[in-house]
Amino acid sequence: MNRWPLPEPMVLALAEAGKAVAAGEVPIGAVIVKDGSVIAAAHNAPRGLCDPTAHAEMLVIRAAAQALGSERLDGCELWVTLEPCAMCAGAIVHARIARVYYAAADAKGGAVEHGARVFEQEQCLHRPEVYSGMGEAEASALLKGFFQRLR
Amino acid sequence: MNRWPLPEPMVLALAEAGKAVAAGEVPIGAVIVKDGSVIAAAHNAPRGLCDPTAHAEMLVIRAAAQALGSERLDGCELWVTLEPCAMCAGAIVHARIARVYYAAADAKGGAVEHGARVFEQEQCLHRPEVYSGMGEAEASALLKGFFQRLR
Repeated sequence: MNRWPLPEPMVLALAEAGKAVAAGEVPIGAVIVKDGSVIAAAHNAPRGLCDPTAHAEMLVIRAAAQALGSERLDGCELWVTLEPCAMCAGAIVHARIARVYYAAADAKGGAVEHGARVFEQEQCLHRPEVYSGMGEAEASALLKGFFQRLR
Repeated sequence: MNRWPLPEPMVLALAEAGKAVAAGEVPIGAVIVKDGSVIAAAHNAPRGLCDPTAHAEMLVIRAAAQALGSERLDGCELWVTLEPCAMCAGAIVHARIARVYYAAADAKGGAVEHGARVFEQEQCLHRPEVYSGMGEAEASALLKGFFQRLR
């Protein structure tokens, strides 16, 4: 039996997560796509960059805004290997990301379907479409492997 | 009658907000203090930096982490002129900021005493002490003036 192939942006986001492992960072990767083209890719790097805000989603949003020359990422898709936290969900709103695809849910730190549920707040200015689960097993395996090696 | 003087870090945060006005940005300013010394100061700059994540709090947290050479800002205070949004509240948690002082509340975008109430979530890993209201009138006047001139 063959596993149904993952969409290309999620394959790329998982590859970014793999690069994070090699850099000693928690393996989370993200990609931004517009009109079928990859605009930016990044992995989690708070240690390497000495920046507590340097989650994969933040870095990829900032890179895409620079690449497109606009602080609004209208029509863009964000593909990420883990459910965004409150910080990243807030950034997704500010950037006006159209669609968010995340692989694994994160009951501890996630703020989309857990905790602060940022997009569900009445005051939320912009609600992206959200899809989850594609690549969940692959994303979780990377994270589990990373934390097991740390023990 | 004289108004009770504001604490020096809030005076500095308001001065940063004033610089934002001059730069055509929504006037919000922030300062990080550790052991009584100012480590970093910043104002809101998403337009100027072409970066949807460039809120005053994010910029000042990133600058302080660079200045201190640590992604954790243990023992630091964040002084900001407006109630932090979900993105900034999340960053405050990641940075382990000890105390947050904000001037004006923000019913539309705030996520401390409004909306996502990030620090009140059961899953929240780190809860700063939070104080609000000092400099509220000054911070609100800056914002009202800015938005009135835009109309």
